[in-house]
Amino acid sequence: MSSFLPPWLKSLPLVEAPHLELVPPHLNDNTGDLDRLIRALKQRGYTPIHVNPARINHWMRRLREGKYRVTAIVGYASCHWELLEVQPDPPEKPPVLGFAVDLGTTSLAFYLVDLARREILAHTSVANPQIPIGEDILTRILYAREDESIRKLQSLLLESFNQVMGSMLDQMGYREDQVYALAVAGNTAMSHFFLGLDPSHICREPYIPAMNRFPFTHGREMGLRIHPEALVYVFPNVGAYFGGDLTAGILAAGFHRSEEMGLLVDVGTNAEVVLGNRDWLIACAGAAGPALEGGVMERGMMAAPGAIDRVRIDPATLEPSYHVLGDEKPVGICGSGVIDTVAEMFQAGILTIQGKINTKLESPRIVSTPDGPAFVLAWAKETADGEDLLITEIDVGIFLKSKAAMYTILTVILNKVGLQFKDVKKFYVAGTFGNNIDPAMAIRIGMIPDLPLETYEGLGNTAGRGAAMVLLDRSLLRDVETICDQITYIELNVNMELMNEFRGALFLPHTDPRLFPSVEISERALG
Amino acid sequence: MSSFLPPWLKSLPLVEAPHLELVPPHLNDNTGDLDRLIRALKQRGYTPIHVNPARINHWMRRLREGKYRVTAIVGYASCHWELLEVQPDPPEKPPVLGFAVDLGTTSLAFYLVDLARREILAHTSVANPQIPIGEDILTRILYAREDESIRKLQSLLLESFNQVMGSMLDQMGYREDQVYALAVAGNTAMSHFFLGLDPSHICREPYIPAMNRFPFTHGREMGLRIHPEALVYVFPNVGAYFGGDLTAGILAAGFHRSEEMGLLVDVGTNAEVVLGNRDWLIACAGAAGPALEGGVMERGMMAAPGAIDRVRIDPATLEPSYHVLGDEKPVGICGSGVIDTVAEMFQAGILTIQGKINTKLESPRIVSTPDGPAFVLAWAKETADGEDLLITEIDVGIFLKSKAAMYTILTVILNKVGLQFKDVKKFYVAGTFGNNIDPAMAIRIGMIPDLPLETYEGLGNTAGRGAAMVLLDRSLLRDVETICDQITYIELNVNMELMNEFRGALFLPHTDPRLFPSVEISERALG
Repeated sequence: MSSFLPPWLKSLPLVEAPHLELVPPHLNDNTGDLDRLIRALKQRGYTPIHVNPARINHWMRRLREGKYRVTAIVGYASCHWELLEVQPDPPEKPPVLGFAVDLGTTSLAFYLVDLARREILAHTSVANPQIPIGEDILTRILYAREDESIRKLQSLLLESFNQVMGSMLDQMGYREDQVYALAVAGNTAMSHFFLGLDPSHICREPYIPAMNRFPFTHGREMGLRIHPEALVYVFPNVGAYFGGDLTAGILAAGFHRSEEMGLLVDVGTNAEVVLGNRDWLIACAGAAGPALEGGVMERGMMAAPGAIDRVRIDPATLEPSYHVLGDEKPVGICGSGVIDTVAEMFQAGILTIQGKINTKLESPRIVSTPDGPAFVLAWAKETADGEDLLITEIDVGIFLKSKAAMYTILTVILNKVGLQFKDVKKFYVAGTFGNNIDPAMAIRIGMIPDLPLETYEGLGNTAGRGAAMVLLDRSLLRDVETICDQITYIELNVNMELMNEFRGALFLPHTDPRLFPSVEISERALG
Repeated sequence: MSSFLPPWLKSLPLVEAPHLELVPPHLNDNTGDLDRLIRALKQRGYTPIHVNPARINHWMRRLREGKYRVTAIVGYASCHWELLEVQPDPPEKPPVLGFAVDLGTTSLAFYLVDLARREILAHTSVANPQIPIGEDILTRILYAREDESIRKLQSLLLESFNQVMGSMLDQMGYREDQVYALAVAGNTAMSHFFLGLDPSHICREPYIPAMNRFPFTHGREMGLRIHPEALVYVFPNVGAYFGGDLTAGILAAGFHRSEEMGLLVDVGTNAEVVLGNRDWLIACAGAAGPALEGGVMERGMMAAPGAIDRVRIDPATLEPSYHVLGDEKPVGICGSGVIDTVAEMFQAGILTIQGKINTKLESPRIVSTPDGPAFVLAWAKETADGEDLLITEIDVGIFLKSKAAMYTILTVILNKVGLQFKDVKKFYVAGTFGNNIDPAMAIRIGMIPDLPLETYEGLGNTAGRGAAMVLLDRSLLRDVETICDQITYIELNVNMELMNEFRGALFLPHTDPRLFPSVEISERALG
């Protein structure tokens, strides 16, 4: 898990646990008990520090219980510190835990982080419990028209949080009240649901969230089964279509600190793209997502056991070989598998540059179906359901629209700032998708630009990673603010230029082969 | 009421109500609703500004209701601002109200303040509802040994607050939710009771409060029937025996800002004395109080209807004349009446310099009682209860101990810093007591030093005044901090020097007449 976090993180945890040996009160020093504690904390630099008035008695008693030797747990809430707990001596080196959460539309990923030992202790993903209310985020936003349904959406999340966090803690032998921080990164609507905010204006022009930069809140206020004073940080949004998952993602990629130009692509419901460096950041999003993740095709599926994720086709025999996740019989095909398949079909000349199946080729794998021609990737006897696993021309057509959308977005964002792809020195691809795809294959089909392969880097769960990072390095809270301040979000207006770009990108790899000098085009693919 | 407040107050109310006309959102400005509001407030200088996450939906809707034209109510909490309310247009010039409260051991005084119009609208005093639990503060501290009794003491206060504030608002035609601030000044124990804090260590050596400098809290957290977001400020203590009532008092007197040396005396359960100027402050307290307020004498009473508050005695006839508060028949005698009586008895030679009644004088008013000689201040036919109103030698003896204690404290505090009384340019006397006493009389008996009469100034309710002042001028919050930082509290240790001072001060006016050059001593008084 250590490679999950970048090496440049500072050791400035969001929550610290200084051990204090206070001078006990005497007649010449009538400082109040809590004032005495606060004075010592200020001397250590924890200033200004806020105290919850409701906890003064509790802390005063703990201070006296420890005979003025205590471990204070203090949390950093951006413009001030907060006293979270007081633990009397003897010191037990209390674990200071936090959860980093990727609050996805489809799934919630939890990372249990030890803030003192700088370790990720455990990791769990569960399906988003709101799915029964609406598979897509828009359905949920429309559902949340009344306060009661806003509360319902929120409580579904909180129940799930409490259950997952509780069982992760149980398994590690920790207690709820040892969790002093929660960092949550989600898209704008999910963050609204989590905080119980009214999302109704997110999906109506001009698409205005209730709030983009959320205040810190606390375990007790949220009804979370963590320490009642625990800090809850929700990553800020830039706008309705650019949420905290992406601000966390930029943080995780770290190119907002780099002199070199970086580009981040996150493929989810939409494909979101961020371009820039430490001086400026520009972002846009477009509907390029689900097909790339295999979500729209007949046999498309998430990268899960039973998914074909790697494909090679022998150009001589046209026979495919594939790898299945979990070494099971294939059930379907995930994003990276689709990219491989299309790329390999194209190289073998099974697909033309127009994306048509070359029916003139003689192979038992090229078959005719009621939906038109198709390629048999796996025979019935090999598959889990005993049916042929087919890639139809229609599937390919849908996929090509998505890859064309992706390439178009990339082109547009670079044009917008007058740059060329060769100026991009780092190309980050977020998500499981990013870790799984083979950049060479994606280049071959013209989905991503023809850059040196080392330019590409898969980042995994960037939202979860960014969230874990702020738990371990509070100075990044300022980075997040800077990211939000710097970023310019551009709307992709459908215009002639965009349509022309898109039409060219519908081809394999593109109508303009000069854009992909490394891609060799076979005679057969020319049709 | 305007003279209640000093003329140098800045117009910087603790709560402000700026009217905002925000640019409504459009496609090129996707700032969130609350962020938009916060941005506008920051531009006006209200920064940093905190927002209660639980109110975001409510305020977002009000913002939209007003079509982005709203009045924002913002409160100043020392190191940040807080958004308290959002009121949609059309603007109704909402009243911004606050209560200043003197949280006394015996009575609670409420001042309803209009923060925008800078007016004190009403004033009410009620008995402290904790009196049935314990007349004196120590009994209440001892009662508060368990959380339940701490809560009981707090809820008695809060019920009283809610009832008094509610009826004051009703009478003026205002609503609870128009009250956005509460400033409370009480002694250390009373402030603990109000905030529900454990006071148990206040009365045990080394006398340590749970907390001296309290955090701001809110209407909702306290369960007060004012606006839920209303700021609640409780004046900080310097120590167990130097509470927020005195920090507020120093603020009200204002000599912490003056180049000249000032001295403040507050007579309550104890006599508390503060000496200093803008460079330094020193304070001490001693048991000089109740007798001075008439609390210990046989016929002593508070300054209330029926109390004799002014007395003159004709040295030739020894016949007294007196003034009764409320123009009723006399019931008893209050502090200023006692001072007058003793001073006039002394001048007329009815009292000797030792404080004995001169029984050699021939007057029907000098009588013998089972308790020793006495002076008839009012005959039975004149009084409310039809009994002679007597001043006995024992009464005088008790009173002289108190006045001697007062003078001793004053002497000690000046000696402590190597100053003399003539260095004191302003001598403030707090409380109703301060407004009522005649300095010439108090000098004549040697209770206060023989300074020019214009040096003396009665201040009335300094705690309530100081509390009202911070509502109207938030810059004074810093003054209060400075006062707490600067002040040195000295314990009066009973030693030989103190005892010698005290013995000399037991005489009328003093064993050393050179200290009171303005006081003429009659032959008769020499015994």
